Amino acid sequence: MIVVMAQGATRFEIHEVCAKLVNLDFTCHVIEGVNQSVIGVIGNITDDLCEQAELWPKVEKALRVGKPYKLVSRECQPEGSVVKVGSVLIGKDKVVIAGPCAVETESQMLETAEAVKKAGANMLRGGAYKPRTSPYAFQGLKTKGLQILNEAGKAYDLPVVTEIVDPRDVEVVARYSDMLQIGARNMQNFSLLQEVGHTRKPILLKRGLSSTVQEWLMAAEYIMAEGNSQVVLCERGIRTFEPWTRNTLDISAIALAKETSHLPVLADPSHASGKRSLIKPLAKAALAAGADGLIIEVHPNPDEALSDGPQSLNFEEFASLMNHLNLGDKK
Amino acid sequence: MIVVMAQGATRFEIHEVCAKLVNLDFTCHVIEGVNQSVIGVIGNITDDLCEQAELWPKVEKALRVGKPYKLVSRECQPEGSVVKVGSVLIGKDKVVIAGPCAVETESQMLETAEAVKKAGANMLRGGAYKPRTSPYAFQGLKTKGLQILNEAGKAYDLPVVTEIVDPRDVEVVARYSDMLQIGARNMQNFSLLQEVGHTRKPILLKRGLSSTVQEWLMAAEYIMAEGNSQVVLCERGIRTFEPWTRNTLDISAIALAKETSHLPVLADPSHASGKRSLIKPLAKAALAAGADGLIIEVHPNPDEALSDGPQSLNFEEFASLMNHLNLGDKK
Amino acid sequence: MIVVMAQGATRFEIHEVCAKLVNLDFTCHVIEGVNQSVIGVIGNITDDLCEQAELWPKVEKALRVGKPYKLVSRECQPEGSVVKVGSVLIGKDKVVIAGPCAVETESQMLETAEAVKKAGANMLRGGAYKPRTSPYAFQGLKTKGLQILNEAGKAYDLPVVTEIVDPRDVEVVARYSDMLQIGARNMQNFSLLQEVGHTRKPILLKRGLSSTVQEWLMAAEYIMAEGNSQVVLCERGIRTFEPWTRNTLDISAIALAKETSHLPVLADPSHASGKRSLIKPLAKAALAAGADGLIIEVHPNPDEALSDGPQSLNFEEFASLMNHLNLGDKK
Amino acid sequence: MIVVMAQGATRFEIHEVCAKLVNLDFTCHVIEGVNQSVIGVIGNITDDLCEQAELWPKVEKALRVGKPYKLVSRECQPEGSVVKVGSVLIGKDKVVIAGPCAVETESQMLETAEAVKKAGANMLRGGAYKPRTSPYAFQGLKTKGLQILNEAGKAYDLPVVTEIVDPRDVEVVARYSDMLQIGARNMQNFSLLQEVGHTRKPILLKRGLSSTVQEWLMAAEYIMAEGNSQVVLCERGIRTFEPWTRNTLDISAIALAKETSHLPVLADPSHASGKRSLIKPLAKAALAAGADGLIIEVHPNPDEALSDGPQSLNFEEFASLMNHLNLGDKK
Repeated sequence: MIVVMAQGATRFEIHEVCAKLVNLDFTCHVIEGVNQSVIGVIGNITDDLCEQAELWPKVEKALRVGKPYKLVSRECQPEGSVVKVGSVLIGKDKVVIAGPCAVETESQMLETAEAVKKAGANMLRGGAYKPRTSPYAFQGLKTKGLQILNEAGKAYDLPVVTEIVDPRDVEVVARYSDMLQIGARNMQNFSLLQEVGHTRKPILLKRGLSSTVQEWLMAAEYIMAEGNSQVVLCERGIRTFEPWTRNTLDISAIALAKETSHLPVLADPSHASGKRSLIKPLAKAALAAGADGLIIEVHPNPDEALSDGPQSLNFEEFASLMNHLNLGDKK
Repeated sequence: MIVVMAQGATRFEIHEVCAKLVNLDFTCHVIEGVNQSVIGVIGNITDDLCEQAELWPKVEKALRVGKPYKLVSRECQPEGSVVKVGSVLIGKDKVVIAGPCAVETESQMLETAEAVKKAGANMLRGGAYKPRTSPYAFQGLKTKGLQILNEAGKAYDLPVVTEIVDPRDVEVVARYSDMLQIGARNMQNFSLLQEVGHTRKPILLKRGLSSTVQEWLMAAEYIMAEGNSQVVLCERGIRTFEPWTRNTLDISAIALAKETSHLPVLADPSHASGKRSLIKPLAKAALAAGADGLIIEVHPNPDEALSDGPQSLNFEEFASLMNHLNLGDKK
Repeated sequence: MIVVMAQGATRFEIHEVCAKLVNLDFTCHVIEGVNQSVIGVIGNITDDLCEQAELWPKVEKALRVGKPYKLVSRECQPEGSVVKVGSVLIGKDKVVIAGPCAVETESQMLETAEAVKKAGANMLRGGAYKPRTSPYAFQGLKTKGLQILNEAGKAYDLPVVTEIVDPRDVEVVARYSDMLQIGARNMQNFSLLQEVGHTRKPILLKRGLSSTVQEWLMAAEYIMAEGNSQVVLCERGIRTFEPWTRNTLDISAIALAKETSHLPVLADPSHASGKRSLIKPLAKAALAAGADGLIIEVHPNPDEALSDGPQSLNFEEFASLMNHLNLGDKK
Repeated sequence: MIVVMAQGATRFEIHEVCAKLVNLDFTCHVIEGVNQSVIGVIGNITDDLCEQAELWPKVEKALRVGKPYKLVSRECQPEGSVVKVGSVLIGKDKVVIAGPCAVETESQMLETAEAVKKAGANMLRGGAYKPRTSPYAFQGLKTKGLQILNEAGKAYDLPVVTEIVDPRDVEVVARYSDMLQIGARNMQNFSLLQEVGHTRKPILLKRGLSSTVQEWLMAAEYIMAEGNSQVVLCERGIRTFEPWTRNTLDISAIALAKETSHLPVLADPSHASGKRSLIKPLAKAALAAGADGLIIEVHPNPDEALSDGPQSLNFEEFASLMNHLNLGDKK
């Protein structure tokens, strides 16, 4: 930690700060600058200590050197993680997860599973618990939806991922799905993070729409700190001032997350843009920037989808996208 | 709903859109403009319908007329709500809620309760479940913390409010506190909103740090739609690009929330700024803009607080603030 | 400057960094931490040096201690500046500047001057050069507008302020107005800042809509570095994700600018909100937070204003606002 | 234009609004909805009219149908523009512009020109007028810098582009360079836009760091409205809350600008990220999303660059990037 003393702090005041720190078993080195002095503090520093130190008399700032995350960092594990979901190896091969925003009917899911499998997708997605802005909007089929998703995945040999929104649902969601998704709105729902950290299911952790990359990594750290190291990150756009897109896909965040952590990183061009015409350019850009795969909304009939229609592709559009991306051998 | 047709849409294409809508029992009026035509659609429109319509051929945009919230709107209840917490009437008198970020010890809470009562505060706050960015930071005393808070409130006749972060804790938190707080990070934790909506406890709903005013009102609508109308809003700053403050207190949001809804609105200058020197100007500004009260962090010894020290006032500073605000008769 | 070395940097690598710095005549102190070492660097540090140092091998970060601005800082001048415009003392008394967004006609300006004078305004505003988003929108009356403004100000003994958008117009604008305004879009138009810095006219410097407080102070530093110390700051709202207001008035910025600089600070609630109903709460809040005054849009007939009608008050509304603000003796 | 009347507006009030519009020669169609009525207004609508209409009694909102830009729109010119700079055809072939942030010395520019030419760059860049946040930072060599840039370009047969920051410099900058750059901070410097619109030089128009895509297109419209249709857009990152990057490269903006306008669009991964390690992933992503080319900072010795060192590549890094991008036949 570096403690920056205010201009005009006396030697006595500087040493009072040192005294507090030495009392807490830290080692201090004072550097007297031209206008201001700083104290280099050595020991096991926490964010809480930094916050406290900023309150002490004549302290202008206290800066933590080093990173608050450990388990997720590339220093901790130099080679990239591979997360196994069924036979899919996220972090090894480029992976595409496809399916509708919400599970609606059995036939919708079976048709979608067949179509996305044929087009080359590796996993199936579908929401049974939908976090909707309005209490009056469709909220998902819940357990019934999980069962439909599960069956559709089995029928076409596609591992399935679905969103979990309540710590009380971990058991039932884990029973029916191969991977649990934490949505953007729940990225800092720490109870939920801890609860999924207790399972041994792979977790797909979406970035919160106003979360920094560091907060996103700290959310992953929450899950890993509970013993579950099967975490996959997913960039899905952040909230900015630009009104022509629903969110702004932060391409740099993909590269930064890959650089600073060992976790696989996917991108979600559907939620990031909210517009069908942008899905192809964003999908290509995300892969070009190093993403380990994509999660794409696909619906048999987007015009009649119960949610997120405008950003869903139909089967033909999805097949065309997959052809275009040319991710290697199709099944 | 107004459907804006793309430039160059033919009359046939316009009437195909009308046909779909008439099939769904809506009434349509076509207005042919100079460059583009629009369709006025009458009936019980939903957001989902708007989203769908945007996908239809030659539709450029579909705009909903009217508001997605009902129960919280001032149209629904022209006079402002008064929420009763013990003998405190939020929305009637200007109210000050004070206390530490986190409950740490019995003596800390008793001393704080005594000091803030004496200075004129109306309610006591203190966190027993702390949502912290790092899994390695202090997470709160949990049930023990609730008990300490409850006793301190009783000892000085101050109703208490505390944050709830998990739907499974509603029963225990409701037992020990007079008002439940939904924190900024959980503003769109819809499971939690629904669960507190089932109680008959007053709810303090903080605005999410990247939530629009409309999303904030929709979160209140979630609680009210479950039957609990005792909702108080709290503006606590939004995330912007400005690095000198932790968040940007959105003063306009206070005035807008008062204008469009009938709910009382408080402001939290401590979290909004993250800096002690800003608490007084922000507190005064919030009241000047029409806030129904304030929630202020107070700690016996901010230098040693286990969390959020930099934004906490000590007893003397709080008493001085209260004197300065001059909110009416002190006890 | 603090140079943070990467984890794993060897002593040799650390001393290579020191050697570069010593060569440039800086003094270095190495502090070896538990995981990482830092170097305290003493001397006359520039931002450019910090940027360079971050590129050297094994350097993780280089942090500047101290502030990049000098002339505007409160350390440089502890007592607040008072800027004299005619007989108006900005920084001493609370000041209200009022008038239309754009100068349109002689009668419009004379009527407005009379009305705002009567209501208690201290200065008259009106735009002759309008920076408009669209090239097809009304761009102002230019020199003719300056003359009209000048006459209206003289007729009612109100000093006038008007926006300047082009360095070639400094001479003519300075001839007709008592104070030059730099608008938000030109806050980092450094040619313009330097040019107005060469005049001895008071300058009203609006904050850019995505400028940090530090960048705003640096823009003021540009003007002062050219020898013109008559600078008044004006907060007018920043761009955020919130769609219900045109901009978000950053109340904290007012308090921070007052705390860190000695310059007077005004607020512009009209541009900040873009809504008439918000002007009163924002005006009150800005004054409560310590603003030295307000700049308010007033138009004889806002319904027919050539620009910015929605945020303009009519005479009656302005008089009512002034009564409500109760800023002291009216003329 | 669609005028949305407030809930509770009477038929009389609705027709008063219509009367005003009919007086202004517009045609009105009233649609009475369940809760609210709307008026469809036909004629030559302007933004100013929309603003005014929002002020009329009982009007809730006035929405413009259609786009405020014309000359830049793809409707106006369906095939993409090709902008010719020397023998380089921007919009036809993928183009790479490379060079240092600032022109420093003759040898620096000659060496850079040679290196980037050899690596396959098509044009040379270099700043002679530098808009710097601090008045105390290096501001560029001005005319001397222009001459050096011009000579280096000629020596290696590379057309040159350089930033212009002051309308008074148009003549001299146009004399020495093949293309004029409008920087992000000047995107809404309308005097400068109009002045370069009077030249017949190609213009490189960077997006402002908090400008919407529509505002960016309107800035291009300013230039084109003056008669200069040789405009190339350049996305260089927007300001968001994320602190790990200098700006957030908005990949969607590239695709949207291509979709809605006929102008070529480049990307600037150097300014967007501010970090050397991000340049390669961002460059690849931008091209994948459809960018017509890149502008990249290259410096013989980034460690000693007078500005923007951290985001500059050295010759070897640039050659490696170019190899990696594999843009077609190298010279």
